[in-house]
Amino acid sequence: MKIDKVGSRAKFLTVFPELVEETVEVLKQYGMPEDAIDWFTRNLNYNTPSGKLNRGLSVVDTYGILKGYETYDDFSPEEYKQAAVLGWGIELLQAYFLVADDMMDKSITRRGHPCWYRVKDVEEIAINDSFMLEGAIYILLKKYFSKTNYYVKLMDLFHEVTFQTECGQLLDLITAPEDRIDLSKFSLDKQMFIITYKTAFYSFYLPVALAMYMCGIDDEKDLKQARDVLIPLGQYFQIQDDFLDCFGKPEDIGKIGTDIQDNKCSWIVNTALNVCTPEQRKLLDENYGRKDAIKEKKCKDLFYELKIDDLYHQYEDNEVNIIREKISKIDESRGFKKEVLTAFLNKIYKRKK
Amino acid sequence: MKIDKVGSRAKFLTVFPELVEETVEVLKQYGMPEDAIDWFTRNLNYNTPSGKLNRGLSVVDTYGILKGYETYDDFSPEEYKQAAVLGWGIELLQAYFLVADDMMDKSITRRGHPCWYRVKDVEEIAINDSFMLEGAIYILLKKYFSKTNYYVKLMDLFHEVTFQTECGQLLDLITAPEDRIDLSKFSLDKQMFIITYKTAFYSFYLPVALAMYMCGIDDEKDLKQARDVLIPLGQYFQIQDDFLDCFGKPEDIGKIGTDIQDNKCSWIVNTALNVCTPEQRKLLDENYGRKDAIKEKKCKDLFYELKIDDLYHQYEDNEVNIIREKISKIDESRGFKKEVLTAFLNKIYKRKK
Repeated sequence: MKIDKVGSRAKFLTVFPELVEETVEVLKQYGMPEDAIDWFTRNLNYNTPSGKLNRGLSVVDTYGILKGYETYDDFSPEEYKQAAVLGWGIELLQAYFLVADDMMDKSITRRGHPCWYRVKDVEEIAINDSFMLEGAIYILLKKYFSKTNYYVKLMDLFHEVTFQTECGQLLDLITAPEDRIDLSKFSLDKQMFIITYKTAFYSFYLPVALAMYMCGIDDEKDLKQARDVLIPLGQYFQIQDDFLDCFGKPEDIGKIGTDIQDNKCSWIVNTALNVCTPEQRKLLDENYGRKDAIKEKKCKDLFYELKIDDLYHQYEDNEVNIIREKISKIDESRGFKKEVLTAFLNKIYKRKK
Repeated sequence: MKIDKVGSRAKFLTVFPELVEETVEVLKQYGMPEDAIDWFTRNLNYNTPSGKLNRGLSVVDTYGILKGYETYDDFSPEEYKQAAVLGWGIELLQAYFLVADDMMDKSITRRGHPCWYRVKDVEEIAINDSFMLEGAIYILLKKYFSKTNYYVKLMDLFHEVTFQTECGQLLDLITAPEDRIDLSKFSLDKQMFIITYKTAFYSFYLPVALAMYMCGIDDEKDLKQARDVLIPLGQYFQIQDDFLDCFGKPEDIGKIGTDIQDNKCSWIVNTALNVCTPEQRKLLDENYGRKDAIKEKKCKDLFYELKIDDLYHQYEDNEVNIIREKISKIDESRGFKKEVLTAFLNKIYKRKK
């Protein structure tokens, strides 16, 4: 499917205000007072549509590819709306996680604005607001899909992926707390688990699986084919993120990396831990995860000394070969398409930001 | 159904460790490291089974009544387990809310122990832990009910009641924040909305509706019959709670009321606001909701002066008459039974604690 990136985002965004209205309608039917209705509306608008929307757009695009559509004009309006509802479902899921993550990480800003819990008068109410963002997903699923024969599958999938993400988040929180640095808790295995569960399932597998259900391509063999490529792809994406945080150019990635100071259990530090001498390990123990620019510099110098960037490029080449190999073997006989996966890979491979 | 209260609780409790094991099994299948498995196990055990378990037990008891059972021996083991799973589902839902509510209210203890977020090393991780308590509900529903023809109905009901509770909690949080006292925001209407949504749906309607689905009594007319009695009953229960907080004897209710100091939007203060003179209103504006025993006493003296206790007894007599009248008109032709509702009423009427 030929996709005009700017246009597709704009089209996707036009759906959101309708969904806000339809979700808020539930509160109106309950007879909720005006101030609570306004609050919930503000919660939805503040926290949901301000990101890159890649996950939500992936649902629509994947659906288009599976249907063999050339452009958005090939969608019927109802069809586009339904696919967009699933896409916004993922964006709501992400909003639910991010509002809570910001509180758990004591973050200051998100997407260039104050984190929701730091907005005047919100504070701890943000916890209940995150719950309500999740609740909005099921209101929309019910409204748009309760009459379909795959409604149960959608709910089961959202439940499963939500729980997987929470498992990844739990492990991340107890492995790499910002205030108790203990590199002996780190390992590449744990890091792989964290990124797989915390990110890959909801960001890579979920959008494709949702689009597949909507197309009726729901054989467990096909879902497995998708998962077997999308999970490694999601891992690669996240490891690339770790690489760019340390070795990327700020002018390319648009921010200055903070993983070292934040005690992040990243691919970089875990790979370093695997190859360092006892002396270098001592340097890491003493300097990693501190809010201190000089200590951060010492870690970064060590990462260069250990040539972690070379090791990353080896990992990347190897991983991408495996992924391409898997894609080439995809069985398209039941309607699933390689193109869904190559589209993802092409967006990610050798990205600089 | 003849119920031995102590025995029924003990039997219900024996199911919980099995459910913990079955839920934690999911994390084991994911390959989660031991420390995360232990953490989730501790989360489930610390936060779920320590309360009175009235809501969970109500599912089992209601199911027994609807089936015409005399004792627990009439349940097949599988049948008891299934009903208990639904009961524990409500207890997990409550645990999810309570862990979060304690953080939002900055509470110190819950059920005689430190609130979960105040346990060493837990802190903000409690937010993700509350998410996982909710996640456990859907793991169990899937395991025990995905093959039944009412699985979708169970999920829809849990979603709806969860969202309703969150709506009630939102209104409560923005109407009666502990640090910004403004009695002009209060009203009996708002208070009624808060208790209906925040408490009555999940504590009164949900257990009965779940038992009804399990019995196949799911005609919308029957669910409405249940709701039309259980919601007013839940409101009455909560208003009684407000009454006991102010007018109950500490030796009866087992605690000292804190609603006045906590700026609670209670039936007591709202009724007082409706009948007080401008001068008495000024007293309330200046003294209600302050962490100050003398100011608290001034409010309480005013409530006695205004004879709010007499007004409560009028409300109670009137409300219970309406509820009895509704119960008497219940249509039992499709299998629903008045006895389900009278059992609830008898547990509540004129309670002292």
